[in-house]
Formats: sequence, C-alpha cells, structure tokens
Amino acid sequence: MNVGILGCGTIGGGVLNIIDNLPDSSNVKVLKVFDLPSKKEMLGARFAETIDEVCENKDIDIVIEAMGGDKFPYECITKALKNKKSVVTSNKETVSLHMEEFYALAKENGVKFMCEASVGGGIPIICSLIDSIGVNEVDRIYGIINGTTNFVLTKMDKEGLSMEDALSEAKRLGFAEFDATADIEGLDMTRKICILSSIAYGGYVPYDQIHHYGISKVTKEILSDLKSKGATLKFVAESKRDGDTVRVSVEPVVITPDNALFGVSYEFNAVYYNCSQNDLLGFYGKGAGRYPTATAMVHDVMRIMSASEPYYFENKKSFKVENFLKSSKYYVVKNGESSFVEGINDLSSYDFVARVL
Amino acid sequence: MNVGILGCGTIGGGVLNIIDNLPDSSNVKVLKVFDLPSKKEMLGARFAETIDEVCENKDIDIVIEAMGGDKFPYECITKALKNKKSVVTSNKETVSLHMEEFYALAKENGVKFMCEASVGGGIPIICSLIDSIGVNEVDRIYGIINGTTNFVLTKMDKEGLSMEDALSEAKRLGFAEFDATADIEGLDMTRKICILSSIAYGGYVPYDQIHHYGISKVTKEILSDLKSKGATLKFVAESKRDGDTVRVSVEPVVITPDNALFGVSYEFNAVYYNCSQNDLLGFYGKGAGRYPTATAMVHDVMRIMSASEPYYFENKKSFKVENFLKSSKYYVVKNGESSFVEGINDLSSYDFVARVL
Repeated sequence: MNVGILGCGTIGGGVLNIIDNLPDSSNVKVLKVFDLPSKKEMLGARFAETIDEVCENKDIDIVIEAMGGDKFPYECITKALKNKKSVVTSNKETVSLHMEEFYALAKENGVKFMCEASVGGGIPIICSLIDSIGVNEVDRIYGIINGTTNFVLTKMDKEGLSMEDALSEAKRLGFAEFDATADIEGLDMTRKICILSSIAYGGYVPYDQIHHYGISKVTKEILSDLKSKGATLKFVAESKRDGDTVRVSVEPVVITPDNALFGVSYEFNAVYYNCSQNDLLGFYGKGAGRYPTATAMVHDVMRIMSASEPYYFENKKSFKVENFLKSSKYYVVKNGESSFVEGINDLSSYDFVARVL
Repeated sequence: MNVGILGCGTIGGGVLNIIDNLPDSSNVKVLKVFDLPSKKEMLGARFAETIDEVCENKDIDIVIEAMGGDKFPYECITKALKNKKSVVTSNKETVSLHMEEFYALAKENGVKFMCEASVGGGIPIICSLIDSIGVNEVDRIYGIINGTTNFVLTKMDKEGLSMEDALSEAKRLGFAEFDATADIEGLDMTRKICILSSIAYGGYVPYDQIHHYGISKVTKEILSDLKSKGATLKFVAESKRDGDTVRVSVEPVVITPDNALFGVSYEFNAVYYNCSQNDLLGFYGKGAGRYPTATAMVHDVMRIMSASEPYYFENKKSFKVENFLKSSKYYVVKNGESSFVEGINDLSSYDFVARVL
C-alpha cells in the first residue's frame, strides 16, 4: 500500500519515521508528503507542493492527515475520500464537526475512514468502542482525555506549582501548545467526548451543545482544601445516555482514591465506558505526544490494509443534550469558602464549581 | 459463518446466548453445541453427543472451546485445527501449555487461533498487545489479572473481612470456584502472564519456570499495617524483559495511591504494558464472569470473520527466566513484626513477603 502524508510536523513526521522504519514485509511505503516549502529540502523527492499531488495521486491508496485545524483539513479529507483514498486522521477538530460526512463519503466511495488518533493519542479507545458496540449497548463514557490539563493539575496538586508555572512547564516539555486555551477551557475534551459519544450511542451528539467549564479558576488553595478532605480534582469529560437524552459535560470533578481516575497523573489519559454485557472497560495511556499519536495512526493504516470489515458511523439517532448541573452534587467555592451543594441553579453565583463524581 | 461450541456452562452458554441474539445481518449461527447428556434437552437439535460432531463437522467454520482444563480441550483444539476450523478459546490452562503448537497448527491449516478471553476476560488485552508488537517493542507487562484474589484482598482491606469470609463471599457471588487454590496460590495468574509475556516478547516464557508466591498468608493485620503506611497490598503478575532475560513473578506487591493499580478493586482487573513508541498503555475491566468473557469470545469470532490479517505466535527466542526476589525492595513480616529489606535471599526466613512496586 502506498501512503501520502499531509503535514510533516510533530505527528506527521512521527508517522513518516515509523513507516520508513517498518520491515519491508509490512508492505507500506510513504510516496508523498505535503507540507510548507520550508520542508522541501528535508523531504527531497517525496515533497508534494500541493495537496492534489497527494489526494489525487493515482498511486496513493491511503492519505494520512496530520495538519490540525478544521477548514483546510476538511477540504483535503473530502477530496481524498472522493478520489477513493482511505483516510487516517488525528484531527479531533474536523472529525467532531464533520464525522457524519466523512464516514458517508468513505462508504460511498468504498474506502475507509479512520480516526483512532483523534481521541486519546496512543490509546486504542475508538477501535475498542467500535468492537464493543457490535455486541454491547454502551451507555456511559468518562475519562481524562486531555494530557495538558491533567499535567497542569497534577503539577499543581503534587508539587504545589501555580497554574501559570505548571502551564509553562507543560509548554517547555511539549505537552501544551503556545495557546492552551482550548485545553484549559475544555474545548479539546469537548471535541473528543463528542466523537466518542456519537460513535457509542449511534447518533451525533453536537459538539456545540456540550456544556464545558474550564479549570482556569483552580487554585492551590482549592487543591489543598480537597486534599484535606481525602479527595483530588481531575478535569473530566463524561457522557451518559438515558433513552433519547444524552447528559454530557466537560468539567472539573472531585474524586477520591477509590476512583480509578485518581491515579491517572501528569500527561496520562484514561477513559472508561460502561457496556451492557461487559460492565466497565477502561483504557490508560499517553493521550498525546509524537510517537503515541503517530503509532495510533500507523495502526489505523494497518487496519485498513488488513481488509477487516470497515466501520461507518451513521447518524441514526437524534438526542436531547443536557448537562449534570441540576442533578448532581457539586463542590462549590464562594468568597474563599468551600461547601457541597445538591445541584447548581446559577453557575454565576459561585467562584468555582466541581462536580462530585 | 457457522460456529460449534464445546462446553455449554457459564461461558459457553453465554456465547450461545449472545450469538443467538445477534441481528441476522451479523451472519453467525451456532450449529452444534457439545456438552454432557444432561444438557441434551435444553439444547435440542443443536446438541452434539461427541466432539467429532463439532470438530469434524463439514458445515462448521469456527470451534469455540469453553470447557476449561487441559488434556481434553487440547485434544479438541488440535482436532478442530487439523480439520481446518478456526478456534476461539478462553482456556488459559491449555493455551499457556500449548500455545506454540496451537498457533503452528492454525498456520499450517490456513485457519486462525484466537485466545483473547484467556487473559483478562472482557479486556481486549491480547489483541491490543498483538497490535502493539507490530510497531513497538514491549518490555514490561504488569497487572492484576485475577478477579477472585483481587476481590478477596479488597474485601479484607476495605471491609475488614477475614480471608475465609472474603473467599466465601467470592464463591457466593460466583467470582471464585469451589477450589480456589489456583487463584490464591497464583497459578491462574502464572498461566496468564506466561501467555502475555510469550506474545509480547516473541518467545515462549515457560509457565513452570515462573516464580509465584500466593496470598494465603495475608492477614487483616498486614493490611492495616500497610494502610497505616499509606499503602495497600495487591496480588500482581509482572514480567520485564531485558535482552535475553525475562524477570517474571506472581506475588503480592505493596503499592501507594500514586500507582494506577491502587484504585483497581473487587473483581476488576487491570493490566499495563510498556512499549517503545507508546510509553505505558493500560486496560481495565471485568476479568472474569459470564458475559465479559463470552463477549471477548464473540469478538474473536468477529475478528475471524472480518478477514483481518491473522496473527501466529512463533517461539523465536529462548529466554533465561528469573524472578525479582534478589534485586527488589520487599516488605517482610517475621513473628508479627514488619520491616522493609533490600532483596530476599531466603524466602523461608519470613512469615510473609510482598514486593514494593
């Protein structure tokens, strides 16, 4: 199989490296790599100046999109699919917005669309979820699916850093981008829980209807107050299906050591789901980073090659989307005093809130 | 695809139930079920009186072995493979002893051999491991892969039960067999870590060379002593590869809340492995029970049907097998007094030992 790569940055470069180092018997070759002209020298004969050299290339079977963003990747992915190329992407932004269309185009053109790396980096969560829904009803998904914010909270909690210092450290180590707003405010996790929930429940759970409450107001005082109560704070995405309603949120939660998420620290991710015949299943690993993500993409390439039955998401159900605010117990802070309340009616009446999981 | 089931007890009956309730589009049918004559009435026309009616049946493509034990299942599995039927088994006993032969026979006969359910029940650990070794070097595996003993230790630790009472409770709830010796002494986990290590490292790690030290000597006093130190005790299987040496053991270990295994309680299992490009990957779920295990077997059936590239274990490397006793820190108890020592030279000089993880 011949592969074309769009974007040769951290992730795309990692994919290129892994594939170039696979044994010949694996039968995968990278033919073309599209990136900005500054990469031309490095890429040599494989450099593609336009996306058409990849997406319309007759010799290419699989297009790997590793650029990030939405509009341009959307254009590239649809073009590749229409040209009957299977697509592998790690792009949660464009997948969370256009998954229905991507899968439909893939089906129409007899190719595959794979996005394992868009959630949880190297954790095989999407393929496991797809396996599970073949035999199970899934009705709850929850987890820590953003490495940046988990790293920041862990640094603050265990090492007493301020949020600012923890974030700088995350940037220094490559766990956070220059602008970490999408992480801190929960937009990144919102996209990921949108993708997971839509696949799990068999209907699109609109990204823009998902309640998210960021961690920018978390302080060292809040963390030590919780520690004195034997608990800790984690930034968690959760969705629960109950008939036609999906309750979903991305918000800080209070957990105790009994909870399996308690020990998930630093840049690690963990995601759990409940299914009818298999109870609770969980997955743990590095949710970001060059090689974990690139490995997940190479696995997708191998799954395409293995001729296994393709999965196509179809938006068969329409859900009412709600959040947990009114129905759950919350830890709240107001004027430096903390307490617990049953249900939140007005978010603005507190300085900080975190659901008790 | 037509399926034959050998053994219609807890697991086999679960598989039968799941497959009978799959939508017609799934294209799987159970044609024959072998069990003792007492099941004849219940099974009706599908009852098979001899294994040959399953293993030599021209209309059957896949044989599901769910009987347990070693000698008879070995006979059935080899017969089915030689008759060009793919085999799915949950039998860790026979797999840990004969995996090399089973995979070789499957390859020779152009069929598949699948044993996902033999380790970790409903946790997709074997297929993930097989995926990983395609791109990664795996050099460490560790986890709680026996639900019975984890249930017993959790009951003792969290609810103050004696081992005897905890074990009775486990039996009452169906988490332990009448004779729980294989669980308590670690034989069950020894078989599972043998299977996982052999696949991960690409060479057979002989079952009978794996050090195991059971939990029969664990007391409430030991657990509360550890609790006062901020730690707890878990019964863990671990293997580490370093060149031609595999260090492997099944023994109680002392862990603190930082460790991801800390929150793994009751009948749940969790298993982690380290791989070169993906760091640490972990899996969590019900490691036993009717539907988790049966679901894993049905997934294996679907993987066989999907025409995905088969995996065949080959015993390509010969390892020196060692344990951790001399090289690790241990918590030791002697005459009711606990302390920590660096390395154990003589196990018999202590009343109880547990490695510090």
